[in-house]
Amino acid sequence: MDLRGTAGHPMATIPLPQALLRPLAVPQRLLLGPGPSNVPPRILAAGSQQLLGHMHPEMLQVMDEIKAGIQYAFQTRNRLTLAVSGTGHCAMEAALLNLLERGDTVLVAINGIWGQRAADIAGRLGTLRAPGCRGAAGTWPAPEVLIHPPAFFPQGLARHKPSVLFITHGESSTGVLQPLEGLGELCHRHGCLLLVDAVASLGGAPILMDQQEIDVLYSGSQKVLSAPPGSAPISFSERAREKMLRRKTKPPSFYLDMGCLANYWGCDDKPRMYHHTAPINSFFSLREGLAMLAEMGLESSWERHRANCTLLCQGLRELGLELFVKEEAVRLPTITTVRVPKGYAWQEITAFLMKEHGLEIAGGLGPSVGKVLRIGLMGYNSTKDNVDRVLGALRDALQRCRRSRL
Amino acid sequence: MDLRGTAGHPMATIPLPQALLRPLAVPQRLLLGPGPSNVPPRILAAGSQQLLGHMHPEMLQVMDEIKAGIQYAFQTRNRLTLAVSGTGHCAMEAALLNLLERGDTVLVAINGIWGQRAADIAGRLGTLRAPGCRGAAGTWPAPEVLIHPPAFFPQGLARHKPSVLFITHGESSTGVLQPLEGLGELCHRHGCLLLVDAVASLGGAPILMDQQEIDVLYSGSQKVLSAPPGSAPISFSERAREKMLRRKTKPPSFYLDMGCLANYWGCDDKPRMYHHTAPINSFFSLREGLAMLAEMGLESSWERHRANCTLLCQGLRELGLELFVKEEAVRLPTITTVRVPKGYAWQEITAFLMKEHGLEIAGGLGPSVGKVLRIGLMGYNSTKDNVDRVLGALRDALQRCRRSRL
Repeated sequence: MDLRGTAGHPMATIPLPQALLRPLAVPQRLLLGPGPSNVPPRILAAGSQQLLGHMHPEMLQVMDEIKAGIQYAFQTRNRLTLAVSGTGHCAMEAALLNLLERGDTVLVAINGIWGQRAADIAGRLGTLRAPGCRGAAGTWPAPEVLIHPPAFFPQGLARHKPSVLFITHGESSTGVLQPLEGLGELCHRHGCLLLVDAVASLGGAPILMDQQEIDVLYSGSQKVLSAPPGSAPISFSERAREKMLRRKTKPPSFYLDMGCLANYWGCDDKPRMYHHTAPINSFFSLREGLAMLAEMGLESSWERHRANCTLLCQGLRELGLELFVKEEAVRLPTITTVRVPKGYAWQEITAFLMKEHGLEIAGGLGPSVGKVLRIGLMGYNSTKDNVDRVLGALRDALQRCRRSRL
Repeated sequence: MDLRGTAGHPMATIPLPQALLRPLAVPQRLLLGPGPSNVPPRILAAGSQQLLGHMHPEMLQVMDEIKAGIQYAFQTRNRLTLAVSGTGHCAMEAALLNLLERGDTVLVAINGIWGQRAADIAGRLGTLRAPGCRGAAGTWPAPEVLIHPPAFFPQGLARHKPSVLFITHGESSTGVLQPLEGLGELCHRHGCLLLVDAVASLGGAPILMDQQEIDVLYSGSQKVLSAPPGSAPISFSERAREKMLRRKTKPPSFYLDMGCLANYWGCDDKPRMYHHTAPINSFFSLREGLAMLAEMGLESSWERHRANCTLLCQGLRELGLELFVKEEAVRLPTITTVRVPKGYAWQEITAFLMKEHGLEIAGGLGPSVGKVLRIGLMGYNSTKDNVDRVLGALRDALQRCRRSRL
């Protein structure tokens, strides 16, 4: 091995990447898929502030404000409340790998793709996965997408005696809003912790962590909070914290070790220590997303999403389209699923909207792939104007994609 | 549990966080600590572009450009080259948890804090950790901070028969640049993979992945690349990829599973699939950081860091300060360590620089805590002007912090 060139200096021999020498080009898009949403100028401006050091007092203050903002958004007084340095999926892993140890039993209620993911991760962690409720996607009240607590949970908890029950509140793959009423109490009667994924629902539909006795709740930055992806709120109840303190082994990650993160986020009584270099400007953006939610107020945000979803559903029906989730009570207000109309290929519709209208909607995902189109109206993007734009674009697509097939 | 208020609507009862209702305030700082560095306007602008979807063709194009940029920066032709969706520490975990399985033996060469971290993570993964070279920080050529290949590695490899050897190239806690000459070949003769942490050194000192036969190399975005923290370049050789393909168990993370990430990043022959929502604008920023490095050229970047580090060291000596790393050949050009001068408390000096000059330098970390001050000149911040500013500020501190003690 000789790293030296003829002049005695090390030489780079892999050539310059030509594509990198062109300027970055980012087209403008209206992002009405299941996320990320468009980011409002205020949050983009916050994210483009010059950096602070990850231990500067002003940065720790921003982190304290994020913590307070998450406590408000989650409606919790949990001290162990913070943002992990990754996207929503990273928070799912943080929840599972901190709560579970090898040999623990976890009951995963699979009502769509996120339950499938959680079951996959639980398996990687060496836990015993109770089978949960598995099956193809259908419509309410079919048990495949909506898990009916009276019929399923008491049996599952009694039979498998899990230490943790995982369930997704807003299933972005099916458009279902899973009712959680009474589930926290039920879990606690069985000595089980309740872990809820609220990535797609937080701020768009009521979820009240303390009142609903949820033990671990997490979300993402890029849905209703309208910040870029890259940080993810999470909170742990005292019950969950106690289970983590009883661990016999360290979690299989240092980056996501909640004991270390709790200290860095000032959630324990020790002096705050360096843990890892946080994604500083992602935290600036998340802070602004939480501030905008607080300024609007949770109730107003829930109402805004409900109202715009109702308008959208009405317009979709008027276009002759069939909603995938029939019952309004269990329809996710942030992401609306509509059946792919007969005679159309979903890919043609999404491609047409992107090409002709610069507008993103998505096809299905996991259990709903090929069956539905998914339209997201989240946070900054949940407006009457966007309802009109997506309905107009869909009307155009239904006419012109059809014509192209005749 | 009753989530409904008197009007039948769910009610938020945890009050608005008052601190969030004030505007975000970010003071301007010159960040000359061990990272993050200040971010140039071009990269801040890229990071504040409106989002694209994580599967849009233009986004996949940006990812392809990042991949090409990393191949150039690492000087590798490895196909399995990408950025993980987290900070540099996350890349360390990604490397270890994909390479190692329970029962594997890993030899961790501990030449500062990052080896300690790697050993901690290896333990969490259930691997057998060979003890490596452990000890307090000292100065070259003491074996505690600089691991002398002829004396240590052949014995360690022969005795422990590790499947992976971990070592840090640029040790930000001590300011040492670890020579790697011949180490890749040596490892391969022993059937061992070489895993190198180049978070603090990439772009600032020569490292040539393919020529040096390094099997896994990773770095961070927030050092020489001058992008915000939140994404981390990583690359795997064919040997490393083959070891991963032979795994008997899945890695304990889905988020960092290199098989899934390889597919999302177009590093295999299958169609690219959704894996997780990437930190889109962190990738925009990383792309620009890599583009700026490519435009400057690796050799020029190495020379820039060498020249400014030399100027800084000369100035530090003229102030009567003692460099922690005596031999220039093993001095990290990006982060300079200098002994805390007698009669001063390091905290007073760093606090004075922050308060009076809006300038960050850092104390020690891990094995060097209390012993050194650390001054970073990385990427955008590696300029003669910044050398002058930090020297002027230090001169001021040496006079006024001393005076305040008389």
